[in-house]
Amino acid sequence: MSLENFAIIESTLREGEQFANAFFTSDQKVEIARLLDAFGVEYLELTSPAASPQSRKDCERIARLGLKAKILTHVRCHMDDARMAVDTGVDGIDVVFGTSSYLREFSHGKDIPYIIDSAIQVIEFVKSQGLEVRFSSEDSFRSDLVDLLTIYRAVDKIGVNRVGIADTVGIATPRQVYDLVRTLRGVVHCDIEFHGHNDTGCAIANAYCALEAGATHVDTSVLGIGERNGITPLGGLIARLYAYNPELIRRRYNLPLLREVENLVANLVNVDVPFNNYITGFTAFTHKAGIHAKAILNNPSTYEILDPADFGLTRYIHVAHRLTGWNAIKQRAEQLQLNLTDDEIKKITAQIKALADQKQLSLDDVDVLLRNYHSANVDAEAETGLTPSDVVAAD
Amino acid sequence: MSLENFAIIESTLREGEQFANAFFTSDQKVEIARLLDAFGVEYLELTSPAASPQSRKDCERIARLGLKAKILTHVRCHMDDARMAVDTGVDGIDVVFGTSSYLREFSHGKDIPYIIDSAIQVIEFVKSQGLEVRFSSEDSFRSDLVDLLTIYRAVDKIGVNRVGIADTVGIATPRQVYDLVRTLRGVVHCDIEFHGHNDTGCAIANAYCALEAGATHVDTSVLGIGERNGITPLGGLIARLYAYNPELIRRRYNLPLLREVENLVANLVNVDVPFNNYITGFTAFTHKAGIHAKAILNNPSTYEILDPADFGLTRYIHVAHRLTGWNAIKQRAEQLQLNLTDDEIKKITAQIKALADQKQLSLDDVDVLLRNYHSANVDAEAETGLTPSDVVAAD
Repeated sequence: MSLENFAIIESTLREGEQFANAFFTSDQKVEIARLLDAFGVEYLELTSPAASPQSRKDCERIARLGLKAKILTHVRCHMDDARMAVDTGVDGIDVVFGTSSYLREFSHGKDIPYIIDSAIQVIEFVKSQGLEVRFSSEDSFRSDLVDLLTIYRAVDKIGVNRVGIADTVGIATPRQVYDLVRTLRGVVHCDIEFHGHNDTGCAIANAYCALEAGATHVDTSVLGIGERNGITPLGGLIARLYAYNPELIRRRYNLPLLREVENLVANLVNVDVPFNNYITGFTAFTHKAGIHAKAILNNPSTYEILDPADFGLTRYIHVAHRLTGWNAIKQRAEQLQLNLTDDEIKKITAQIKALADQKQLSLDDVDVLLRNYHSANVDAEAETGLTPSDVVAAD
Repeated sequence: MSLENFAIIESTLREGEQFANAFFTSDQKVEIARLLDAFGVEYLELTSPAASPQSRKDCERIARLGLKAKILTHVRCHMDDARMAVDTGVDGIDVVFGTSSYLREFSHGKDIPYIIDSAIQVIEFVKSQGLEVRFSSEDSFRSDLVDLLTIYRAVDKIGVNRVGIADTVGIATPRQVYDLVRTLRGVVHCDIEFHGHNDTGCAIANAYCALEAGATHVDTSVLGIGERNGITPLGGLIARLYAYNPELIRRRYNLPLLREVENLVANLVNVDVPFNNYITGFTAFTHKAGIHAKAILNNPSTYEILDPADFGLTRYIHVAHRLTGWNAIKQRAEQLQLNLTDDEIKKITAQIKALADQKQLSLDDVDVLLRNYHSANVDAEAETGLTPSDVVAAD
């Protein structure tokens, strides 16, 4: 279990550039890189310098920024690409081979020696230049297991720093990921990286299961942006790991910057942060049903496993609706310093529910009801001596 | 493994009503119910009739619609609530007991007989009325396992139709869900339902693992709306199950209605469908990197495990950017019926990459480059006899 000893490879500047709307200028890339570095990710992965002339310049520029995060670039398993990557000054190179159709071909066995030979050539060259090197397959979960393991064992033997498995099409399930990583963990001695797409909603769960099985590195991007609907989102992975070990995550990352980096990237790629986003979605810490509101008021950990304050956020207890409960309304009355008995609160709660059946209420509506009731009490008691419940019953 | 024999309990009209922005009128509830029924979900779960007067009327109204889906309502484990629920005319009742603090209390053992006694009373009453009944705990993953199993075994013995486990706070991991459901599967004979929140991004994966372990029913809501950032989204669960068995999912559900029901609910609760939503997000079938575009053009299943046509959607291959590749550009030239050689296409691709480094390109820009090159060829050949590559080199 690597859950205390993992690293995030933040790939917004590589996988994220493959998002439909992404077009980052050089300055924007630097801004994203600096903010992710301040957040505390351990690695930044950049688009291949072979992709375009500017991509190459951007690798050089970001490698020179002197960030704490290690800088990687992601290239095909070709010597030309590897040489160009080394020349940019990055700290390490993520090598990927083949496409899924290619993989299916060598699952018949004929291309394995060729794959291994070119891998060894590239890996030994990158290592001879003093750089970190990773070797990854593509579409690992639709590939032949024995072929995969044969290749990984070969590159492990010549000293690759890390092997990668990739759920390129988003087909893997958590238990498949656990099993494959577990098997791989028994075959290689080097680090293991997991890259997972989110087409079927398992990218966060799969990354977590990979770590449970012995993976050491997980690829993320801000808001998960990437090909199609993207990969493991940085914020979602943070939420999952925080649920496992809050102290560790608070210590390693500058959590209040999460919202800032998400807002930056969302603006640059012209999307809204999803309403249901992990941690930073606008309802992530909103509690509504009466039973939830009551429990949260007593003890937030009853319905909250993430502390919003750690992320520079606040909780919101929504009381102005038909699912509300009298405990939540009582708490609101106390916030307004209105002195009302439990019986009174229960009657007002019934009124709120009936009104909320008619129209969407605001907190103001609730406050007006509470204040009116309270004033009526005060007036009624002063003038007539009637009990508060009589007043409401007459209303 | 219940993956061929599962049912969806669609809870947009119960859990979804607990979403911060949700306020459904009676007519809107009917519209949602009809559309979900047309989509093909097996159950619809409605807010408790005890929540408010209108909630009660809506239960009665939806129960009378004569939908194919079974209608459930969700109530506390109290005889008053159970009687009110039975009187609405629904087909079944989902009973839930306690809160998490309550559960922690009876983890000391003292409240188990009380829980079981009230459960038996409610369950026997509901069954005596000829209705289906489920009995669920709350916050099952932070409860004492022996206490949970003791209670479930007791209600199973008296003939409850279904027991439910709920990850109320979104803390469970896929392997924990698998293990708990697997254990429960060995203890009870009745059906097993899973309800999972998405705070740490595992709601879809957890639901899937529950089915793998022997659960029979999964709770969903449209776009996952619910308390905080919600529960397992209907569309995400469909994507995951489709990846497992496309034929089954195509046969059971009217898949093109997914987008319609998501748009309806998104409008009613005033949110946008997230950019990265499963299946229907605007980039879910967009392919960008050159290597992806090339493979998709040859065979879509290389990078696509969901067929967009099944959902009434189309794929989009994005070629006007610096990560493009010459195979994708060649395909575009063929679409435009421009006859260009591979060498010519490669030169134009280099031009496109260089231009795309300078500014965000549109498909129009690519088309203009291709057409200009082609016309220049035609003109040049007609006038000078120069080869096309000479023309570009001079450009």
